[in-house]
Amino acid sequence: MTETPLSSTERSTVRRHNERAVTDRQALYDVLDAGIVCHLGFVVDGAPVVLPTLYGRDGNTLYMHASSGARSSRLFTPGADVCVTVTHVDGIVYGRSVFHHSANYRSAVVHGTARTLNSEAEKRHGMRVLAEHVVPGAWGYARQPHAKELAAVSVTVLDLTEASVKVRTGPPRDSEDEITPDMWAGVLPVRLDVGTPQPDPHVPDTVPVPEHVRTRRL
Amino acid sequence: MTETPLSSTERSTVRRHNERAVTDRQALYDVLDAGIVCHLGFVVDGAPVVLPTLYGRDGNTLYMHASSGARSSRLFTPGADVCVTVTHVDGIVYGRSVFHHSANYRSAVVHGTARTLNSEAEKRHGMRVLAEHVVPGAWGYARQPHAKELAAVSVTVLDLTEASVKVRTGPPRDSEDEITPDMWAGVLPVRLDVGTPQPDPHVPDTVPVPEHVRTRRL
Repeated sequence: MTETPLSSTERSTVRRHNERAVTDRQALYDVLDAGIVCHLGFVVDGAPVVLPTLYGRDGNTLYMHASSGARSSRLFTPGADVCVTVTHVDGIVYGRSVFHHSANYRSAVVHGTARTLNSEAEKRHGMRVLAEHVVPGAWGYARQPHAKELAAVSVTVLDLTEASVKVRTGPPRDSEDEITPDMWAGVLPVRLDVGTPQPDPHVPDTVPVPEHVRTRRL
Repeated sequence: MTETPLSSTERSTVRRHNERAVTDRQALYDVLDAGIVCHLGFVVDGAPVVLPTLYGRDGNTLYMHASSGARSSRLFTPGADVCVTVTHVDGIVYGRSVFHHSANYRSAVVHGTARTLNSEAEKRHGMRVLAEHVVPGAWGYARQPHAKELAAVSVTVLDLTEASVKVRTGPPRDSEDEITPDMWAGVLPVRLDVGTPQPDPHVPDTVPVPEHVRTRRL
């Protein structure tokens, strides 16, 4: 891991614990691709608003979902600055001192100017990107969106150029003189798991769980 | 679930899917208490910044952690507006149409003015609140912070009065005419699980995993 961020702007430069900064663009994509919900920040009347939002990625572009009635789109000024953050908690870190307790995590922070899609073709593509990310396989299984649904959907896109990735892994960073032979320290791993698919009450028992649901992992 | 938010300000009023808004203050505490990382939004040079941050709750106050060297504190103007959001993904919702795919989740959005703690006593209390939230039991097991550590730590507090909670549960909302006898729809549950504690390499095999680690659940 090096200290350079993915772009050279002031605000995307990781300051605190910059040994945790990652420069590889693939690392950015990996963090984004592993998530379901991003936290979308924007400014309303000078104050920040942070809302959880489903998203997907196509190349170097992030697609975010909001209904056209949603606050996140109604309060948006076209071309407004946004910040989108995706975080995965990978572990809880137990040190010998309270001070050295921490969390293992991967996070991506993207800065940029959001753009809301207008044409039906663009929105259809955006819906497909979102579906392939959140519910891969569903685009080919479920009914695809028709014009009225596309009109009701708002898809916001963000270029991924100005971004930074931070990763913490491994055991606590207790100083050597803290290490004693009678105290436990280490990491409790944390991960998102999926449970058993729960069919909608209207689904007959004879309908199998489709493969794209059965094999979905996080 | 009712449509009224926890406070009556414009920005904390849930607009989209306001049937998902929850008014009970305990519901806010439940969402916050179930999380490890919040997403802290603030404004720098007119643009939003959203950073993941460890936090804890004491009554109606949120405590957030940052090193005094961290961007989140260095870029903070005292009394600056912040927005703190905590989100739990509880399931992936599969509809009969792509349009009705969704996610089950619980989220809390808090607006307010942040204050950074100054005195050693306040910071010690803040560290304890953070520890009891992220690593309950660690305050009594690990070495407690000394003055130099407290000086190096920045703890930011936020009043929880202006907040809203949104919850989505249950199956997809396909319209009745979409329901067909040959298509699966339903929910794939998602949850954060903990794995097997991984001791630090310096911990002798004879040291047991302490109860507060062994019994930690999310």
